[in-house]
Amino acid sequence: MTLRILATGGTFDKHYDEIAGKLDFGTSHLPDVIKRARITIPVAFEQVALLDSLDMKDADRQRVLASCSAATESGIVIIHGTDTMRETAEVLGAANLAKTIILTGAMIPYEIANSDALFNFGFACGVAQTLPHGVYVAMNAHVFAWHNVQKNRSAGVFETR
Amino acid sequence: MTLRILATGGTFDKHYDEIAGKLDFGTSHLPDVIKRARITIPVAFEQVALLDSLDMKDADRQRVLASCSAATESGIVIIHGTDTMRETAEVLGAANLAKTIILTGAMIPYEIANSDALFNFGFACGVAQTLPHGVYVAMNAHVFAWHNVQKNRSAGVFETR
Amino acid sequence: MTLRILATGGTFDKHYDEIAGKLDFGTSHLPDVIKRARITIPVAFEQVALLDSLDMKDADRQRVLASCSAATESGIVIIHGTDTMRETAEVLGAANLAKTIILTGAMIPYEIANSDALFNFGFACGVAQTLPHGVYVAMNAHVFAWHNVQKNRSAGVFETR
Amino acid sequence: MTLRILATGGTFDKHYDEIAGKLDFGTSHLPDVIKRARITIPVAFEQVALLDSLDMKDADRQRVLASCSAATESGIVIIHGTDTMRETAEVLGAANLAKTIILTGAMIPYEIANSDALFNFGFACGVAQTLPHGVYVAMNAHVFAWHNVQKNRSAGVFETR
Repeated sequence: MTLRILATGGTFDKHYDEIAGKLDFGTSHLPDVIKRARITIPVAFEQVALLDSLDMKDADRQRVLASCSAATESGIVIIHGTDTMRETAEVLGAANLAKTIILTGAMIPYEIANSDALFNFGFACGVAQTLPHGVYVAMNAHVFAWHNVQKNRSAGVFETR
Repeated sequence: MTLRILATGGTFDKHYDEIAGKLDFGTSHLPDVIKRARITIPVAFEQVALLDSLDMKDADRQRVLASCSAATESGIVIIHGTDTMRETAEVLGAANLAKTIILTGAMIPYEIANSDALFNFGFACGVAQTLPHGVYVAMNAHVFAWHNVQKNRSAGVFETR
Repeated sequence: MTLRILATGGTFDKHYDEIAGKLDFGTSHLPDVIKRARITIPVAFEQVALLDSLDMKDADRQRVLASCSAATESGIVIIHGTDTMRETAEVLGAANLAKTIILTGAMIPYEIANSDALFNFGFACGVAQTLPHGVYVAMNAHVFAWHNVQKNRSAGVFETR
Repeated sequence: MTLRILATGGTFDKHYDEIAGKLDFGTSHLPDVIKRARITIPVAFEQVALLDSLDMKDADRQRVLASCSAATESGIVIIHGTDTMRETAEVLGAANLAKTIILTGAMIPYEIANSDALFNFGFACGVAQTLPHGVYVAMNAHVFAWHNVQKNRSAGVFETR
């Protein structure tokens, strides 16, 4: 198996800007996260965007789709903001690529104590190698088909529609 | 899907004893790790042992097997020391249970900076839900069949035999 | 020596609210921080407020002053937001109490990777025991008299006026 | 004020060696710790040794003394193992240098969760600037004169003799 990791931003990758005093995007944490995971299979990393998913536009989703189409790896993990993860999943799902594409993210940024980011990334790297071709949302040990998932914003969890 | 998590000890769960000045076992980190992962599927936790895997005896492996046999969940993740992970996998593999059993662990203890423990745990929780029934070693994004894995101690990685 | 620690909020004590998706205040980290520091002298903790220092009003500063006046300890450490640390220092300085009062805080919240919070807290606990009576701002290994300090917001550091 | 930081090893600076599976010394964490503290006064760093303090010999203590003698800074912080911190303090104390020399360390290594290392380092950087010339042990918010301190090994704390 080989894996491609796509960074698009989202809570997972937010960084505390000490001058501005707020969470924003700096450089992606993913290269460090991949090193930390000590991944022993071939893995490629690509930064498509670093956006809050509420700021993601159609053109951004098309760039994500283009990266998935161009990838030579059969398993793809996309780090994405949770708020519009489903919308991107729908764009990718409709394209019907012969690949296993997993969207994941985090409820707490990677650099903040008690973050679920590394767990979700590991989980996504697992199911990206084992699920049949298709597009999935994988968060907090739960796999959802792209056409049957929604974020419950008040509870802060994903659920079936 | 439902998951059962079995703690047996190993590097993953080591704890720094500040009086003795060395790494040892205290209470398992797994309950905290499970909470941190915000797992949204049913999950059961069971502490079978807290041992360095070099200290694990046949009787300990039989207890792990007994817990796997008794489990009502179809997916089982076992946190285990890396040094004899393969030996325990062989005991479980030979039993041929109708379950998906994943052994995982860590190269760096969970409580130490830059640990791979949370990644490996997430990875194991993913493949425990998606692989066919059988026994597997899953470390650092790589899945191995139980009868075809060994630890390369000088490189600190798992590889096929 | 004995110490009193006063929490008033500020960057040091911010907490990531995973439902709202932003940094806010939950319960103070200070009780955990004090435990972690393994302080072996008598220490009292008091939560006066949990505010962004930009939201601190005259009445809040008067409550901080009242706590300082009422304290039986001769050394007081106040955890405070950086943006109006000087204004609170001025209120306390003018009161001319026979105590050593140290205002400190953090450029990065305690719960975020690479935070200076624990260092600044340790630094403040040191100079609170050793400086003559008076009011001081102590940040990033630098002690300032209360009447001669300002925050350089573009550089994110404190400096003399 | 200016500060000199001397690394000599000790629990503070221990590093988990994932191949050997134990705590040892790699490169010192101190350069990273100093950066993290965002120190805004002039600071010099010097690595004298990286030793478990039980392995420290007379010659090593003489090298620490030589570094203290040669230092142009008036405040010196020495990161040292706790087990023989008092012995080194005695060597330095007898030399009667016209400098403020603070020995500190940690009960839990810097890279392990819940470490007191950063707190102790901040504390030491504070009292190194404010105490009269002399040699002190400063641990867990408590300052001890060099001739009146001992480690209580069963309790894991320092106390007066």
